Amino acid sequence: MSTPRGRGRRPAAEDTRGAIVKAAREEFARAGYDAVSMRAIARAAGVDPALLHHYWEGKPALFVETVAVPIDPEAIVANIVDGPREGVGARAVASFFSIWDGPSHRLRFAALLRGAVGSEELARPLREFLVAEVFGRITRETGVEPGPLRAGLSASQLIGVATMRYVVELPPMVEASVEELSVWLGPTLQRYLAD
Amino acid sequence: MSTPRGRGRRPAAEDTRGAIVKAAREEFARAGYDAVSMRAIARAAGVDPALLHHYWEGKPALFVETVAVPIDPEAIVANIVDGPREGVGARAVASFFSIWDGPSHRLRFAALLRGAVGSEELARPLREFLVAEVFGRITRETGVEPGPLRAGLSASQLIGVATMRYVVELPPMVEASVEELSVWLGPTLQRYLAD
Repeated sequence: MSTPRGRGRRPAAEDTRGAIVKAAREEFARAGYDAVSMRAIARAAGVDPALLHHYWEGKPALFVETVAVPIDPEAIVANIVDGPREGVGARAVASFFSIWDGPSHRLRFAALLRGAVGSEELARPLREFLVAEVFGRITRETGVEPGPLRAGLSASQLIGVATMRYVVELPPMVEASVEELSVWLGPTLQRYLAD
Repeated sequence: MSTPRGRGRRPAAEDTRGAIVKAAREEFARAGYDAVSMRAIARAAGVDPALLHHYWEGKPALFVETVAVPIDPEAIVANIVDGPREGVGARAVASFFSIWDGPSHRLRFAALLRGAVGSEELARPLREFLVAEVFGRITRETGVEPGPLRAGLSASQLIGVATMRYVVELPPMVEASVEELSVWLGPTLQRYLAD
């Protein structure tokens, strides 16, 4: 496909940085966090290892960028909690799938899960992100008790679904549409987050 | 601790086989499936690699034994579906925790999850075990539709809980008692499996 600009190349630095992140995502998803070195990522991306150290302080920083999804937790939480209270669960499920249910984001989820399962260093940011930034904010907004446990149960249900749909690929969980899944998951999240 | 027998050692073969399985479980839980070689397990167990090949046909066979829990799926399913229908969810949750909520079984879960996330070869047995042997049998017994999707949702919820409680160690999910968790999870599983 041609770029919108008629002539010249886009700035090479952006291309290269993006290519490195893409290679890193594939390597982390395939082999886990510990097993992948900066050197191996450089090799997969076809660049000099020094370039990786120019862009990122170290492997943790590169990993975080690799699995990050371009989301604004505050906006997502506002979208979930604003509106009729009986729709909190359905809106939480809809937000979750709108973020994760695309092919490149599935790969991010696999990398994130592999990282969190294999490394305490990476489990911590996942815990903090999920609880402080997303589900914990929702239960604070809805005022349910015990908030942290309900936030944890919500994260458990959706992380389990993503594990079975995107990683383990259990056929009925892969074949179901987002709409079918939401019919089942909406009431579960509603009970955990708002009832 | 002394063994019940007053004299002599127990047969060395059993000790050695058990020691290899224990070493393999720790290595798989720590480093994942692909990254661990039969040779590395032999080294960790302090035995000759040839001995591993004497006991097991290959790494997949050793892995399966490593993560296997001594359960009888048929008996578990019978225990869940026999009895009042409104208690199916609560009994499913109780069975799950009775199997997984001990320290050595947590390690098995971590190894199993790392294996299933990292390797299609291992994701397949997990899928088949969960669906054909456990949750799929329950939905066949309770006769709910669509059975395979409801079985998948049940597996998703409990695998998510085990991931957060045993692997990612989200504090509220670790600190909650099995009783507290069951109050929340019982109705979820009841809706998926029997309502």
